[in-house]
Amino acid sequence: MQINRREFSCLAALGVGAQLLPSVSLVAEDRRIGYCIVGLGRISMQHFMPAVKMSSKSKVTALVSGHRDKAERMAAEYGVPSGSIYNYENYDEIRKNPGIDAVYIALPNSMHADYAIRAAKAGKHVLCEKPMATSVEQCRAMIQACESACRKLMIAYRCQYEPTHSRAVQLLQEGKLGSIQSIESAFGFLIAPNEWRLDKKLSGGGPLVDVGIYCLNASRYLAGEEPAQVTGLSCVVDKDGRFAQVEETLSWTMRFPGGALASCTCTYGSPMRGYFRVRGSRGTMTVDPAFNYDKLHLLMQLEDGETQEVAPDDPDPRQFLREADHMADCILQNKEPKTPGREGLRDVELIERIYRSCEKRSA
Amino acid sequence: MQINRREFSCLAALGVGAQLLPSVSLVAEDRRIGYCIVGLGRISMQHFMPAVKMSSKSKVTALVSGHRDKAERMAAEYGVPSGSIYNYENYDEIRKNPGIDAVYIALPNSMHADYAIRAAKAGKHVLCEKPMATSVEQCRAMIQACESACRKLMIAYRCQYEPTHSRAVQLLQEGKLGSIQSIESAFGFLIAPNEWRLDKKLSGGGPLVDVGIYCLNASRYLAGEEPAQVTGLSCVVDKDGRFAQVEETLSWTMRFPGGALASCTCTYGSPMRGYFRVRGSRGTMTVDPAFNYDKLHLLMQLEDGETQEVAPDDPDPRQFLREADHMADCILQNKEPKTPGREGLRDVELIERIYRSCEKRSA
Repeated sequence: MQINRREFSCLAALGVGAQLLPSVSLVAEDRRIGYCIVGLGRISMQHFMPAVKMSSKSKVTALVSGHRDKAERMAAEYGVPSGSIYNYENYDEIRKNPGIDAVYIALPNSMHADYAIRAAKAGKHVLCEKPMATSVEQCRAMIQACESACRKLMIAYRCQYEPTHSRAVQLLQEGKLGSIQSIESAFGFLIAPNEWRLDKKLSGGGPLVDVGIYCLNASRYLAGEEPAQVTGLSCVVDKDGRFAQVEETLSWTMRFPGGALASCTCTYGSPMRGYFRVRGSRGTMTVDPAFNYDKLHLLMQLEDGETQEVAPDDPDPRQFLREADHMADCILQNKEPKTPGREGLRDVELIERIYRSCEKRSA
Repeated sequence: MQINRREFSCLAALGVGAQLLPSVSLVAEDRRIGYCIVGLGRISMQHFMPAVKMSSKSKVTALVSGHRDKAERMAAEYGVPSGSIYNYENYDEIRKNPGIDAVYIALPNSMHADYAIRAAKAGKHVLCEKPMATSVEQCRAMIQACESACRKLMIAYRCQYEPTHSRAVQLLQEGKLGSIQSIESAFGFLIAPNEWRLDKKLSGGGPLVDVGIYCLNASRYLAGEEPAQVTGLSCVVDKDGRFAQVEETLSWTMRFPGGALASCTCTYGSPMRGYFRVRGSRGTMTVDPAFNYDKLHLLMQLEDGETQEVAPDDPDPRQFLREADHMADCILQNKEPKTPGREGLRDVELIERIYRSCEKRSA
């Protein structure tokens, strides 16, 4: 009997794989996971693809773009055969391409669900950029589609694969800070006019879904539990036409069941380097910058004088390499990703609750 | 005709002082404002009184304390005659003491209103610690009493007399940061059991009224306008009995009419050095520490590379000296204090709104 790795993963998930494991594992060790890059924008071309190029577990085997010229340039750079260049019309033909194990979806947010579901139906695993989608319903449909097709679904929360964030979580779990009282976090940038992010049909929201989601996701893994209450306020300061559809700045607060509060701010109206700070009964831990592609820095200062600094030598695009390789490991070893579909769903559920809270108090 | 300075202030307020000004000013230059210190605690003994000792405009002329021994020790140190030592029973006799121009009220919060009103009725000006009082009604009664008695009422917002904060406000007013998007601020400390601050009858509230008020007051003068919306969440993390009556940690957000948001956190559960950060379209300004008694530090970083640092050599108790002398100037020159009763009232109004918002979402 011959089965390929993807078929094995599915069988394993169905509980029939154990007896097949040795032979398949040997096959798996022989080759890298093939990624089809869906959407050739900044994050794909400047970060994810260069990361995969460095990988011993992953490779770029196909591209999807509306710009053939750009796709051909990238194909030449990454050794992708021209027959593995797709556009948004013939995307579903990826089904026939055995070199594609997984898709990496880096499209405008409102397109995530459709392209993820079609990938699953084509028998491909899905690594999807955050925010997972622009509604809870879309997230649920994505999870359902990947489960039905027995494909992995991972949301590209790169910070959860990054050593500074992992160390922060570890220090908190060890109780170094004592009882956690509060988390402060902010992230934002000054947006140019005409960005697709300002078009609500494409983005699904403003800075909250784009950069605030880093503060939101970090607050959840730093607190180690799910928020029970949320409340927020949003605003538009600059009446220059950029913010006709989405908020410019948004601040929200969450309370966790254990009592800790998280107070977060995101913006498209200010160059706001992303950071977070955790306050505990024994001291403070600050990660600043926290959400950059590299040069992250952690400083823990305890009342008893103990300090700890973490500043890993982890240059860009190492965060993307860790993320791509984690997905590859999950496919090869039939493991659940650390950031599966339901992790993305939880953030989208909270984003909807935060927006509802803001609407109640709209000016 | 002979009138003393206090009587002159009152006449001036009633519009009849102008013709008397020259002779009275000459008298005023000859002597310092006499302060009666009401409450001998840490802030009086370690900060305010040492500051007044350095002053050329103010002096300590009387003391009010429930501890005669302590009062006599302080009286000896400050050259206060033993006949000018009062207790809480004979406090109203300050009326007969011509050496007292003003009282400095540094009592538990719930006693501010009573002692301020009785001071005004005794013909004394009032410098009162923050929070002004524990209810809006008390604040209004204090303002009314001082107006009726034609006495000055100033709330001891020391940071509004401090050069780093003044420079921050000036930079914002000059538009250096561009359009202001948001303000983040936090302040807190780890409280010991049995502090009067944990007794709601004395304090009127938890960290919000004690340390959060610094973030609240700063947000208002940094934004340069009054908040239109507020929303908050409070919590108790440590179930060790300290927080039976007041919150342990509280985060709140305010939106100003121009659109800017302020996101603040205060706590009694973590050693949280007070800071604020203002985000504008052109860059960021951070004052950290912001609310300490000295060694404040301002750093403004603009996108165009311009930076500005302010770190005045203004050792403790200079903030208190500036505050005491401002009050003295207002009395001597019959001016309205920069932080009059209605400034304290506004914060207490907002504190009540923030608590109501938290109660709506209590766990």
